[in-house]
Amino acid sequence: MLEKSTLLEQVIQAWQQLQAQQPLVQCITNSVATNYTANILLAAGASPAMIDNPYEAESFTHIAAALSINLGTPTNEQMQAMQISAKTAQLTDTPWVLDPVGYGTILKWRSNMVDDLLQYHPTIIRGNASEISTLAGHQAKSKGVDSTLKSADVYHQAKVLLKHANCIAISGESDFILSQEFNAVIQVNGGSYLQPKITATGCALGALIAGYAAVATPTLAAIAAHLHFAIAAKLAFKKTQKLGEFNIAFIDHIHQLDENLIQQYADFEIIKI
Amino acid sequence: MLEKSTLLEQVIQAWQQLQAQQPLVQCITNSVATNYTANILLAAGASPAMIDNPYEAESFTHIAAALSINLGTPTNEQMQAMQISAKTAQLTDTPWVLDPVGYGTILKWRSNMVDDLLQYHPTIIRGNASEISTLAGHQAKSKGVDSTLKSADVYHQAKVLLKHANCIAISGESDFILSQEFNAVIQVNGGSYLQPKITATGCALGALIAGYAAVATPTLAAIAAHLHFAIAAKLAFKKTQKLGEFNIAFIDHIHQLDENLIQQYADFEIIKI
Amino acid sequence: MLEKSTLLEQVIQAWQQLQAQQPLVQCITNSVATNYTANILLAAGASPAMIDNPYEAESFTHIAAALSINLGTPTNEQMQAMQISAKTAQLTDTPWVLDPVGYGTILKWRSNMVDDLLQYHPTIIRGNASEISTLAGHQAKSKGVDSTLKSADVYHQAKVLLKHANCIAISGESDFILSQEFNAVIQVNGGSYLQPKITATGCALGALIAGYAAVATPTLAAIAAHLHFAIAAKLAFKKTQKLGEFNIAFIDHIHQLDENLIQQYADFEIIKI
Repeated sequence: MLEKSTLLEQVIQAWQQLQAQQPLVQCITNSVATNYTANILLAAGASPAMIDNPYEAESFTHIAAALSINLGTPTNEQMQAMQISAKTAQLTDTPWVLDPVGYGTILKWRSNMVDDLLQYHPTIIRGNASEISTLAGHQAKSKGVDSTLKSADVYHQAKVLLKHANCIAISGESDFILSQEFNAVIQVNGGSYLQPKITATGCALGALIAGYAAVATPTLAAIAAHLHFAIAAKLAFKKTQKLGEFNIAFIDHIHQLDENLIQQYADFEIIKI
Repeated sequence: MLEKSTLLEQVIQAWQQLQAQQPLVQCITNSVATNYTANILLAAGASPAMIDNPYEAESFTHIAAALSINLGTPTNEQMQAMQISAKTAQLTDTPWVLDPVGYGTILKWRSNMVDDLLQYHPTIIRGNASEISTLAGHQAKSKGVDSTLKSADVYHQAKVLLKHANCIAISGESDFILSQEFNAVIQVNGGSYLQPKITATGCALGALIAGYAAVATPTLAAIAAHLHFAIAAKLAFKKTQKLGEFNIAFIDHIHQLDENLIQQYADFEIIKI
Repeated sequence: MLEKSTLLEQVIQAWQQLQAQQPLVQCITNSVATNYTANILLAAGASPAMIDNPYEAESFTHIAAALSINLGTPTNEQMQAMQISAKTAQLTDTPWVLDPVGYGTILKWRSNMVDDLLQYHPTIIRGNASEISTLAGHQAKSKGVDSTLKSADVYHQAKVLLKHANCIAISGESDFILSQEFNAVIQVNGGSYLQPKITATGCALGALIAGYAAVATPTLAAIAAHLHFAIAAKLAFKKTQKLGEFNIAFIDHIHQLDENLIQQYADFEIIKI
């Protein structure tokens, strides 16, 4: 039986390991997210490298501690790199995160690629409620690349996706993490209403999950990364409700997290599947 | 006869509609501007989506409320996407903005593309004084992609461009908006001397015009977006004259605009063509 | 015999010339760095233009005052543009900076391109200790694209690279600049431990060296740019130790540098080769 206190202890250990190991995280991500993602990973304690060309993808994934693939604004070269790196990650047992941005019927090119990438068994799939619901076989409901569904309404649908990945993470007002390992759903609360007003936060979160997956089990990685974000957003929002200032304070708190802050501010529930 | 008070009322309504509808704005933009543009659109109230590949361009423009095309750092794939999306926008009566960054004789590839895109009748063309002057058939005068001309000196030249677009917007120390609809030029004052020291502000402004064009007429969209920027810059500059802090405060005020601030700070003149 | 006071005087003149001439700097850089680099160049006084496609590279390099080539996340089109622009820079005596991000055995595609670009004799090569050491023929030691070596331990190795470039700049805890012109090594101290926690600072520094190279000799350009960064980082760190705020304050101080601050805070030593 999964205990909340045990889980919190393991999250703290994951954070400590992230600081100690500073894992090398290869990110193949979109043009909107690339600078922000690298800065979030550095602030959090990981070492980002945005190697996204097909000529270096294989050799780089061999040395990366984790891989993050994000479908936000794919190019032909990135699409090739995604396939090569995902395949290499599977072969080398390198944990990798799949973020199927915009998955659904309108955006066919990327949706087909996501379907294809599932064969390489992502360690964690993370997305918003619309993306995860559609990926789980339900009808697409989204506004562009933003969700029109609530994470609380779709997490039960995501169960079928556990055949493709060890862990499914759905972000929203509350985040829901479905775990094969724990046979449970973990609900992470917190964040701020300002966060969806900042672009690429979800993309950066996906990369941070990959960073944690280099030093912890898939479920712990997802929980630790979501808590890292939720606590930083909560503390930033306590400081300021101005959007630009909030984003700066968010980075400050991604960087300043420590054991005490995790203990004090981690807000999550364990739900049976 | 166009009244200033009526125009101000309509600008306020446009801003209210932007908040209410949160229109989906497809942006095909340059690598420098992509993150900043998405953040400005989110802060202002719109929903950005940076879909810029030729395989998804057509289907996405079909669902987008507006389209913004910016020629800053084009790639081959983006160039194809621009043509497809501009054509689709015309077919579907989707308002779209053309920002011919660097238009002129040195940068032939993009200039030819801009000439080509004019056939799809952009709703609004926006650019700096050098770009608009050159597009209007005058000799190119620019420094790289920055203007060496003053907007006040070229706006009369831009009249010929009204055969290509409903509205021409020229940014500079003061901004000038030429309107077919109103048969007038609207001069928008404000901003700050710090703004040209921040990259991609013009690019983001073009995308915001597109956002407003989803909820208002072309001329009103251009005026509302320029006032949105000018007021936010003025308020940010009142707070700080430090460049980094100014940029953060600018985003704060893009987000915090409201009816009262528009009433109080909108600074514009109506000039007969 | 090179005097420290003379050098400082020349650095101040270089800074003054940068403000006076606002040189047009063409940057072919990576997706992480492009926005940050443009903002740093603008803040410092230069005029950035991120022209990185092979169709406009040649004509643009003809009008650029300097060129910066960075191998961070190359695409096929950028790779072509790099060759064209480097060749054009050599033909037109335009100063250009080569930043061989990730040079080493794992990342073969870019490493081969770097080897190839050396034929066009870069004015300045700048990189971290691992990149410069590997480029100088020593065994690769890096973590992804980050250095695992100290600049103080490798600068003597870099001497052999002076056959390829007029000046070699190695960034690290202290920066080391090897000069053919002065037959000396200049050690620049300062900066902050927070700077490596912000992505693309090294990339932006490379572009700023190019900016200074348009208005000063190669060695002076490298020294002036490194001092510009070191002083801004020192002053930012005096203001705040929070990572997000530090980055904003850093941009403030890149913009606010003046003769007195250079006089007061420039911290460097001249070492004989």
